[in-house]
Amino acid sequence: MDARIREHADVICNHSVDLAPGDNVVIDAHPVAADLVTALHEIVADHDAHPLAIQERTGKRFLRAYLRNHDGEFSAPEHVMALYEEMDVYIAVRGSDNVTQTSDVDPETQAAYAGATQELLDERLSKRWCLTQYPAPANAQLAQMSTEGYENFVWDAILRDWEDVRAFQSQMVELLDGASEIRVVSGEDTDVTMRVADNPTLNDYGEKNLPGGEVFTAPHPDSVEGEVYFDKPLYHQGREVTDVRLTFEGGEVVDHAAAKNEAVLTEVLETDEGASRLGELGIGMNRAIDQFSYNMLFDEKMGDTVHMAVGRAYEDTVGDGNERNDSAVHVDMIVDMSENSRIEVDSEVVQEDGTFVFEE
Amino acid sequence: MDARIREHADVICNHSVDLAPGDNVVIDAHPVAADLVTALHEIVADHDAHPLAIQERTGKRFLRAYLRNHDGEFSAPEHVMALYEEMDVYIAVRGSDNVTQTSDVDPETQAAYAGATQELLDERLSKRWCLTQYPAPANAQLAQMSTEGYENFVWDAILRDWEDVRAFQSQMVELLDGASEIRVVSGEDTDVTMRVADNPTLNDYGEKNLPGGEVFTAPHPDSVEGEVYFDKPLYHQGREVTDVRLTFEGGEVVDHAAAKNEAVLTEVLETDEGASRLGELGIGMNRAIDQFSYNMLFDEKMGDTVHMAVGRAYEDTVGDGNERNDSAVHVDMIVDMSENSRIEVDSEVVQEDGTFVFEE
Repeated sequence: MDARIREHADVICNHSVDLAPGDNVVIDAHPVAADLVTALHEIVADHDAHPLAIQERTGKRFLRAYLRNHDGEFSAPEHVMALYEEMDVYIAVRGSDNVTQTSDVDPETQAAYAGATQELLDERLSKRWCLTQYPAPANAQLAQMSTEGYENFVWDAILRDWEDVRAFQSQMVELLDGASEIRVVSGEDTDVTMRVADNPTLNDYGEKNLPGGEVFTAPHPDSVEGEVYFDKPLYHQGREVTDVRLTFEGGEVVDHAAAKNEAVLTEVLETDEGASRLGELGIGMNRAIDQFSYNMLFDEKMGDTVHMAVGRAYEDTVGDGNERNDSAVHVDMIVDMSENSRIEVDSEVVQEDGTFVFEE
Repeated sequence: MDARIREHADVICNHSVDLAPGDNVVIDAHPVAADLVTALHEIVADHDAHPLAIQERTGKRFLRAYLRNHDGEFSAPEHVMALYEEMDVYIAVRGSDNVTQTSDVDPETQAAYAGATQELLDERLSKRWCLTQYPAPANAQLAQMSTEGYENFVWDAILRDWEDVRAFQSQMVELLDGASEIRVVSGEDTDVTMRVADNPTLNDYGEKNLPGGEVFTAPHPDSVEGEVYFDKPLYHQGREVTDVRLTFEGGEVVDHAAAKNEAVLTEVLETDEGASRLGELGIGMNRAIDQFSYNMLFDEKMGDTVHMAVGRAYEDTVGDGNERNDSAVHVDMIVDMSENSRIEVDSEVVQEDGTFVFEE
């Protein structure tokens, strides 16, 4: 087994979910990640905790078989709910042998199933949890990398000194907390402002998401003004949308365009009221992530980028009394900030061409 | 996918566990059996039941990692217990990529873990359940067969008309129910008698065990007299014991011998009081099983054999008021009945050289 797999397991258990004696642990992983699941069992034993390996959200081949043969009247399974209720820690490992495994399942069926099992998701999210990635060949292929190159990419992003990361990123959190307005400028096509007053900024240093490496907050839903060109493609439900452009007025997207699969973008924006307003502004600060990989768990933390999500705002990023943008969707898109770009906080430049003011 | 896999899944769901709408189903299987698990998900969907794929008893590599890194003070995990309590149907699929995966785990640790998690086993056995086999290459290797040869062997044994089997075997059940004494004679070395009066005979036609194909009852623990030579090897905890001979007096094994690994046999017999007395007499009637495969799930159902188990008797095979042999062990061993042999029930021959009286 690659030595980095045991290090990965160590970070998950001893940093991300902070495993404690007696914890009831569920590990949800595809067999391609069996090495990591094995290493996790070693550490779970060290902590005198209790492991169970399952394939619920990761068993996409099984899910496909189930969904394609079901009449569509779904309900949440009571035995899985009972498992999750007694669970203290949930570890979900992304990675499979075919990332397009559910491509021939009717999207409406998938949505109906997701809706019917929402309470399972809510229960998982109410526990200590971590979502991480195993560098399987199929995921390397999605990222357009060699398998070995992708292994290096994944573990470089994950095997960080997360206390250092926390300290580094907290400087950005300090700049944003207490700010009223943020302006993001990049190239000729992106110049957007938004109010964030009294909305907390969160520091993501590899706990619920591994890799971590961003700070993020929520704009006031009606405050966004300007234009954004998203340099990086949006990969949504297996379809690639490129060169997305959004124009905001009074917080709302009043114009949108894309070079490829614009219809997918339109569909997202028209999901509901909140889907055409921003729910998140995030600043990617993990410079070990230096390539786009068609995987938002990594892409949104990429160094020298910002991302904006249309749709639902995270509860913890909305201050008391402030409006929270609500939606069934939360779709992140990424702007390159490495060149000819800046972030202004209340008219002061805090990042220019990828360099933060606290690095100068 | 081999067409026989969907037939196998169909037998499991529609015969063995008799799946009903809304059933909460747990499928415990190693990834080598992913085709069968997929086919099971299709049928579970057809029945509007709820599947969950886990690796609890089947995840031997994970279990090895856990057991080797644990301090040895085990307790039963509450979240797994909660899952099993809400479960209606448990399907365990044997089959792995290495049948000797736990060979370097201290047997005492394994025993301590089994003891601490006994309540999980009891809970599973209180539900509708099925134990079956996937014909994985490692299991073919254990059986000393080619992979394709083993696939044919496994599915020939499993894909039977189980109603026909039930009817055929019920003739033997009728002969044994109401009998007082059974005598088994084979070759020069086996001649043993035992009382079975008022102990029910069960008909195994592919429900809890798939394949099924035996009828079995319990001898009175103090009634067994004579000598038995077991033609087929005993494969116990990864070790092969050959040419086992047992001599019974007053129900107790008073002499024993084996050509290979006699110490393993001695260890079994000395486990506790009940380990040196019989807990089961079974008659193998599945003639599709025509080879020994080092897998008791198949071997004990082999046509033209009988098996006797030292140790624990099944509760359902002991009549009210009769003594039930109790032990921590239940170890089956097999006598070939195809040649120069007979079974007598109250001095009447019911099987001779493998042919039953009702077949003549």
